[in-house]
Amino acid sequence: MKWKRSERLVDMTYYLLEHPHQLIPLTYFSELYSSAKSSISEDLTIVKETFEEKGIGLLITVPGAAGGVKYIPKMAEQEVRDIIREFMGELSQSDRLLPGGYLFMTDLLGNPELMNRVGKVFASVFADRQIDVIMTVATKGISIAHAIARHLNVPVVVVRRDSKVTEGSTVSINYVSGSSRRIQTMVLSKRSMKSGQRVLITDDFMKVGGTMNGMKNLLEEFECELAGIAVLVEAQHADVTLVDDYYSLVKLQEVNEKDRTIALSEGNFFSKGEKLK
Amino acid sequence: MKWKRSERLVDMTYYLLEHPHQLIPLTYFSELYSSAKSSISEDLTIVKETFEEKGIGLLITVPGAAGGVKYIPKMAEQEVRDIIREFMGELSQSDRLLPGGYLFMTDLLGNPELMNRVGKVFASVFADRQIDVIMTVATKGISIAHAIARHLNVPVVVVRRDSKVTEGSTVSINYVSGSSRRIQTMVLSKRSMKSGQRVLITDDFMKVGGTMNGMKNLLEEFECELAGIAVLVEAQHADVTLVDDYYSLVKLQEVNEKDRTIALSEGNFFSKGEKLK
Repeated sequence: MKWKRSERLVDMTYYLLEHPHQLIPLTYFSELYSSAKSSISEDLTIVKETFEEKGIGLLITVPGAAGGVKYIPKMAEQEVRDIIREFMGELSQSDRLLPGGYLFMTDLLGNPELMNRVGKVFASVFADRQIDVIMTVATKGISIAHAIARHLNVPVVVVRRDSKVTEGSTVSINYVSGSSRRIQTMVLSKRSMKSGQRVLITDDFMKVGGTMNGMKNLLEEFECELAGIAVLVEAQHADVTLVDDYYSLVKLQEVNEKDRTIALSEGNFFSKGEKLK
Repeated sequence: MKWKRSERLVDMTYYLLEHPHQLIPLTYFSELYSSAKSSISEDLTIVKETFEEKGIGLLITVPGAAGGVKYIPKMAEQEVRDIIREFMGELSQSDRLLPGGYLFMTDLLGNPELMNRVGKVFASVFADRQIDVIMTVATKGISIAHAIARHLNVPVVVVRRDSKVTEGSTVSINYVSGSSRRIQTMVLSKRSMKSGQRVLITDDFMKVGGTMNGMKNLLEEFECELAGIAVLVEAQHADVTLVDDYYSLVKLQEVNEKDRTIALSEGNFFSKGEKLK
């Protein structure tokens, strides 16, 4: 079957979006569409320009026999700002206030469209950091971890509080939770990571950073390297933060249970000075 | 700015893929691209034919003033068979055998590409069932639930074993786990679902169906309706299954710990007689 350019463009766009961070040889497309490599190259130029124009991402061409094309999800700065603003709008609703000054945000973590966009935000900023694995702790960080993972095309490992038979042999550590100062346990399946891997840690919420610090310690047990930390919401607090090099989208400044008000600000995402494009 | 057809096709494909099961008015595209509706219609015909030809999904056109176009992810039968075969190949490796005859599959649940494809399989088969919510139980079902949710554009709710302050008020039930016959507890945030919603239940593994049955009971507490059950792996067993109308991709026939062999077969996915196309 002979493909028209218009059909190739639709199918190619689909294929590239489904295979982020993967090098696809030009021969793959030229064989699939029975088209000359020169035609495929022209197609890819159109896709590349549209992706860049619309803030969808980058299309990187690797020349040579082992070369090909690679789609790198990259979000435009304006879209990141839109997401942060929308997310803050949602979070600031007073009916999210829970006893003890906690915020209900389980519904937002269960929203696949929001999570997909948040995942792309973090995948954009960590696109060049060479991530091998994304690590989170059960339960609430899992949706963010998977959303980032899909855009970076790397596996997710989930740290648990308890050991389960279905995890096989595990490595377990004790750590001090940041705010409550209690000793807690973290467990991770031995098969989860190989030594030397570079790991992005993520979670939905961070206060002092005790859980993050626990995951950092767990990384060391596996002889892995910390490649970055991504947090959806960080909370303002008086203590010294246990981790420093992290990205947050939103900062919870203050919760007033009496007046039922929630004060939020932008996280450190843009103040880190990382360039998105 | 004036858009060329080739650029519109790339951007439209991206937009439709990012917004499954959402009705997009033709005016959205015609304003975005400063193009006549007739040109947009021609573009959409090309997208539609390519999506159908390549087994990407359907593009449904709703006529009239409130009309528009909707992308419905639908996987071709051959691709589902490929996924099942690949998945069985992975699962049958003898080093997955754990003490007690359990199988290690956490790595597969953490693989974003595999989960994305599995999610599309179930989203395809439940595309016409009117799903409002996807429910799973922590921890291992979460990645499948989110993968399905993304393709159906509905929220995920996660049932927990324990109540946490960040969940707000909760509804809790006791149920009998199928195989161990122990009494267990399930907890779900009250805000998770509204009465009358149609819920798809999913999990990574099902033996007798005790956990699934527990979730069914929880649905009743919320006055919600069961819309379907999706299971990655079901296990062969002697007892009566507690749930009947479910879809499984793979069936675990037998585990021989002495010989270290794992016998698998296709799940009931195709024998249910549901048509994919």
